[in-house]
Amino acid sequence: MYKNFKNIDKVVFGRGSFSAMEGILAEKRNENNRFFLFVVDNYFKGKDLEQRIPAGPQDIVRFIDVDPHEPTTEQIDTLRDEVIAEKGIPAGVIGIGGGSIMDIAKAVSLMFTNEGSSTLYQGLNLIKKPGIYHLGVPTISGTGAEVSMTAVLTGPVKKLGLKCDWTVFNQVILDSELAATVPVDKWLYTGMDTYIHSIEAECGTLNNIYSLAYGDQALKLCRDVYVGPNAGQNPENDDKLMVASMMGGLSLTYSEVGVCHALSYGLSKILGEKHCYANCLAFQHLEDYYGDAVNELKSMLVKHNVTLPQGLSKNWSDEQITAMAEVAYNLPHMWNHAIGADWKEKVTIDTIKKLYERL
Amino acid sequence: MYKNFKNIDKVVFGRGSFSAMEGILAEKRNENNRFFLFVVDNYFKGKDLEQRIPAGPQDIVRFIDVDPHEPTTEQIDTLRDEVIAEKGIPAGVIGIGGGSIMDIAKAVSLMFTNEGSSTLYQGLNLIKKPGIYHLGVPTISGTGAEVSMTAVLTGPVKKLGLKCDWTVFNQVILDSELAATVPVDKWLYTGMDTYIHSIEAECGTLNNIYSLAYGDQALKLCRDVYVGPNAGQNPENDDKLMVASMMGGLSLTYSEVGVCHALSYGLSKILGEKHCYANCLAFQHLEDYYGDAVNELKSMLVKHNVTLPQGLSKNWSDEQITAMAEVAYNLPHMWNHAIGADWKEKVTIDTIKKLYERL
Repeated sequence: MYKNFKNIDKVVFGRGSFSAMEGILAEKRNENNRFFLFVVDNYFKGKDLEQRIPAGPQDIVRFIDVDPHEPTTEQIDTLRDEVIAEKGIPAGVIGIGGGSIMDIAKAVSLMFTNEGSSTLYQGLNLIKKPGIYHLGVPTISGTGAEVSMTAVLTGPVKKLGLKCDWTVFNQVILDSELAATVPVDKWLYTGMDTYIHSIEAECGTLNNIYSLAYGDQALKLCRDVYVGPNAGQNPENDDKLMVASMMGGLSLTYSEVGVCHALSYGLSKILGEKHCYANCLAFQHLEDYYGDAVNELKSMLVKHNVTLPQGLSKNWSDEQITAMAEVAYNLPHMWNHAIGADWKEKVTIDTIKKLYERL
Repeated sequence: MYKNFKNIDKVVFGRGSFSAMEGILAEKRNENNRFFLFVVDNYFKGKDLEQRIPAGPQDIVRFIDVDPHEPTTEQIDTLRDEVIAEKGIPAGVIGIGGGSIMDIAKAVSLMFTNEGSSTLYQGLNLIKKPGIYHLGVPTISGTGAEVSMTAVLTGPVKKLGLKCDWTVFNQVILDSELAATVPVDKWLYTGMDTYIHSIEAECGTLNNIYSLAYGDQALKLCRDVYVGPNAGQNPENDDKLMVASMMGGLSLTYSEVGVCHALSYGLSKILGEKHCYANCLAFQHLEDYYGDAVNELKSMLVKHNVTLPQGLSKNWSDEQITAMAEVAYNLPHMWNHAIGADWKEKVTIDTIKKLYERL
């Protein structure tokens, strides 16, 4: 009846705090087979940050291109199997990158200790054993993946997270200097994930003062960053967006996402759209669910000259739209929150198809 | 250089969530000598809550009167020694009450595993071993003790906390129903602790966006509770103040308290004033440090017809004022934050004596 929310064990915050990682890892080096697995966004290959990763000769550093698709169960299983074959079980996994890298680090940390394919564990509390130590360093802000208890994976059947207490990071390092070089469109779409899930958390039956306090502050910080007098990409706003991302993540954790995320999951699963962008595609057409927030989001896009495509659904087949609607329909926790316990009386596959046809 | 902040492991939030305690404790019952120590504010003796405490015949329930004085090192040592003599080391300590009870639960959980007197461990990271499992249930909101990494104790020499990662609670249950019967003056003074330390956290050299985001939201919630259109003691505000307390505590943890808390520690150590009340006594005279916030705090008191005494210092001897000033002066981390690294050039014992003479 009452959720018992697991926090990140430890958090470092501050510009330049990436340098604290080496000291933090030193205490963990002798666990398991005494090496670390670093999973790093391919974007940083050849950049200065690559030289700053505190990896020794015994460690494995994997650069991963997250652009082609969202993290998949197959990708996690393969990574796990390859690392075990090469060196055994790591002392810990360190993820350095955006939401996809956070999810990969969280998921693989669990899969080093839970046998079989990660598809077996998509859902709530299906994981059997604690994972290995895992540390997250977000380099772009907004998904809240650094703080959430879910590692979202796309499997052959469903897009659904490995969700349990052990998913939550043992350590997070919030160094907003790392966000300095994010391109403006990604900066906007990713930040809008925080904006959107904070709004969704507030609009629904699971809303509560705890979630609301986090959500309100995340929204305020988003407004400062995207439309305030000091709007734009600058060091102060990089700090603010990093805190907003964390607070938005806590807001949704203690409440739930809603209609937009349900539609977004369909767009990702069937059309391969990236999560944050898919959220924006859907949210712009949900005035009847989220009211003025839709216009506010649009104003943030306009302010930074980012335009979302319109009329997309004209190019989608009925089969594709039906398939997306089925993905979205099969997320009952989101509809239950957004619409109420009687949501099945109000929302059908056809209702959802019509929502997709707005896009 | 960068603080690595330890979070509460797990948090339950919600009206009525006290009932979740039994299930949570069931998983821990077999640790150590297989009994729990409940430390409960004496206020609840004979009240309904006493019957709801999930204590079995093997457990120890200690009702503690926190009114005569703030928690002392001697009190903690005696409690620890008596419990060990009677039953051994508990599986865990559960604190049910206000900030003093939170501090007692945190401190004694550490002292079951760290030998000798708690006076040996007053300070930062002096504790040698992790304590036993400890769970906090705040029944009055404002001190932030439920979330902080300090268990403040008054010893023969100093008032100073046992401060380390292991001080932080393993579990907190935030059930605002328990706050329903708090008398108006305590409700106000305790809430003002959150107000004051959020202001202090924001006004000083250690201020940062992370601390500020928590502090700003704690202050907003305080305004809602004490002077907003729905001000007063009611269920929604009980929820809000409970969240404000947690957020205010996180704000100060990631920054620092300042001039008011330094003065307050002197008032408690030398005159025995309770912490939250002592904060209010001092803060009302600190316009030159905290500006408009002083007037805002006064307006909150006026709104609820609570009057603070004036002219107290006329009845204090010079020895008492000097002794208080010495206690306050010996809190360099607070002055360093509030005034700057060169604070010793600006603040002397005489400066602080003059501050006390304002009261």
